[in-house]
Amino acid sequence: MKQALAIELEKLASFSDSEAPAVTRVVFSDADLRARAWLKGLFREAGLEVREDAVGNTFARWVGSGEGVVGTGSHIDAIPNSGRFDGTVGVLGGLEAIRSLRRAAFQPRRSIELLMFTSEEPTRFGIGCLGSRLLSGSLDPSRADALQDSDGATLASVRAAAGFSGPLNSVQLAAGYYSAFLELHIEQGPLLEKASNPIGIVENIAAPASLRISIAGQGGHAGAVLMPQRHDAFLGACEIALGVERAAVGTGAIDTVATTGVCRVFPGAVNSIPSAVTMEIDVRDIEPDRRDKVLRAIEECCALAAARRGLAVEATVLNADPPAACDPRVMGALEHACVSLDLGYQRMISRAYHDSLFMARIAPSAMVFIPCKGGVSHRPDEFSSIEDIANGVEVLAGALAELAG
Amino acid sequence: MKQALAIELEKLASFSDSEAPAVTRVVFSDADLRARAWLKGLFREAGLEVREDAVGNTFARWVGSGEGVVGTGSHIDAIPNSGRFDGTVGVLGGLEAIRSLRRAAFQPRRSIELLMFTSEEPTRFGIGCLGSRLLSGSLDPSRADALQDSDGATLASVRAAAGFSGPLNSVQLAAGYYSAFLELHIEQGPLLEKASNPIGIVENIAAPASLRISIAGQGGHAGAVLMPQRHDAFLGACEIALGVERAAVGTGAIDTVATTGVCRVFPGAVNSIPSAVTMEIDVRDIEPDRRDKVLRAIEECCALAAARRGLAVEATVLNADPPAACDPRVMGALEHACVSLDLGYQRMISRAYHDSLFMARIAPSAMVFIPCKGGVSHRPDEFSSIEDIANGVEVLAGALAELAG
Repeated sequence: MKQALAIELEKLASFSDSEAPAVTRVVFSDADLRARAWLKGLFREAGLEVREDAVGNTFARWVGSGEGVVGTGSHIDAIPNSGRFDGTVGVLGGLEAIRSLRRAAFQPRRSIELLMFTSEEPTRFGIGCLGSRLLSGSLDPSRADALQDSDGATLASVRAAAGFSGPLNSVQLAAGYYSAFLELHIEQGPLLEKASNPIGIVENIAAPASLRISIAGQGGHAGAVLMPQRHDAFLGACEIALGVERAAVGTGAIDTVATTGVCRVFPGAVNSIPSAVTMEIDVRDIEPDRRDKVLRAIEECCALAAARRGLAVEATVLNADPPAACDPRVMGALEHACVSLDLGYQRMISRAYHDSLFMARIAPSAMVFIPCKGGVSHRPDEFSSIEDIANGVEVLAGALAELAG
Repeated sequence: MKQALAIELEKLASFSDSEAPAVTRVVFSDADLRARAWLKGLFREAGLEVREDAVGNTFARWVGSGEGVVGTGSHIDAIPNSGRFDGTVGVLGGLEAIRSLRRAAFQPRRSIELLMFTSEEPTRFGIGCLGSRLLSGSLDPSRADALQDSDGATLASVRAAAGFSGPLNSVQLAAGYYSAFLELHIEQGPLLEKASNPIGIVENIAAPASLRISIAGQGGHAGAVLMPQRHDAFLGACEIALGVERAAVGTGAIDTVATTGVCRVFPGAVNSIPSAVTMEIDVRDIEPDRRDKVLRAIEECCALAAARRGLAVEATVLNADPPAACDPRVMGALEHACVSLDLGYQRMISRAYHDSLFMARIAPSAMVFIPCKGGVSHRPDEFSSIEDIANGVEVLAGALAELAG
């Protein structure tokens, strides 16, 4: 099992638009489409029935003898220059869990369905968990279709070009479609490694929010416009980004994080005063009220920079999702698997968000975390050992068997 | 004359990679090459002998009856989303000055040569006045050929692909090649408009310097890495950019300007902590010592940000050129033309740099400025009236006649 899974993870990493070990696989890029085609082949080889919905969410089902469906899965899209384990471990690991149950001649009563979500990462369309938001009815289909990438292409046109042209309002799943949903994922934090625990069982997923800031100032020649006459959009952006950090640190709570990950400067020439800037900001907390206080502080900071420098600053909250609580029965199934496998585990909070945040709205859900080296993620040196991955797969298989049996 | 020139300026603006009125014409882009081809046709139609050197500097000569050459010219490359008058007025206006002298049956003793410089703007290769630096022996040819654009393509390969493949050490002009050099240009500042003077005669060109800052921090997941553990390269960049402004304002001299015009954030995803940033900074002053003090202050600011945030910050001075003084005899010829045309004029400083900064090292040089609306340049709304341009052309023609007669 370990060897096949390691080879498949290696192969999946090769569908990438950056040089190894870095992985770049943006949704509906050529690399993403080639990876999907290869995975669908694997799913069919494993004896699963494959279907895709209008946004490219891919379902691979092991048909059970009775009613009901238990789901598991994750995503394969990867932000620019990131690593090979984020998301992929939950897709290929989920597949391996199903294969191991088949090898063990397990007979599921409920069907077991592997789900590969479209665009968990917000890289292309500015909003994360596109597939799971639509599955759970958490995003208006017409608003989703109108989302644009940085080239101005809409999701509607991009998904159609990728071969997914059905109406987006067909994506939402009926209530009760899944009797349980499980996601296996690397921790993306250092706690399991520090505690030497091979398994984390997630109780709560932190509440993420994201903001887009548009700043309009006045451009001009870098030599000719004197300092007192300037309305430099980038200097306003710098004050806001430092204010974002101050707002997060200022709550005094270790769980508050805020990041300015995107900053685009226009026109972007060394001898030209920046006339416009767009920034994207990510704010998270396990306490939604505290997180919203940070959003307010950032908005105040925008207003201050606008007034001080004579800029037009617009802050748009792209999403501010509530946190999710995991389901006790599903967490219990994971716990039973850990006990029967004699694997140490701990309950924990997911600081990163995941498709499970939205699946939890329509299904009793839980997540299994495995350690990753140094807590590093979204970087080329992201690493989880095949031993840790295999432990996660066994726990997942055990829980799927209990929930589908 | 006015009508032909207005039509030609309009036509030249149409060779662009952005939508009108914005102009984008980066050196050796398709738009640049098509503009060059069209202009060479115009030069030949005007009866001029055209030659190009290995970096694409283009010479169009009206052969005189005797020895010696008087030069005039400017550039046609345009930074992203800028205007249609910067540089182009000196090329098409220079051509019109020559055509008007021919129409008037003027017989030059010295040849009159129109010069179109390659890459006055630093957009593509990070260093301005590429053509005039090489013509004046101010840039080592092998260093120039190794310069890279943001795609990693070297000047050597890019110029060869554009059809300029000769050795770069053939570009430098022999000492005394030009007995005088004149450049007509829009002011790119507000002084002529404010004084209602149609002509400026430049006495000094301010000393520009540029810096490239590379910042390496530690990336990671925006949700999972807590604030105290971060080494965010972009937040360091923000502190440095604000420090650049402070350093310029801090001299207390109105003539000091400093601009962070380029900032690229890596990997540039909303849910990823910035691991690396590059910035490009432009510093200018008419006092080179004061300008160099600003460079030192920026370097100190880099060291501080590096220490405070645990970043690796590297500051490289790309160029720090001395200012240029214009030649009294050439300025005199411009003055005589203004007097005989009854045009008001003023002596002034050029805060923007120009190819004349380098031509002044190998030829007695001067510049003619004309007003531009609101002092605006490097923006789509850059504007000079055809009347002001025609005045500049007449002054240039008068001075060329005196210097070549």
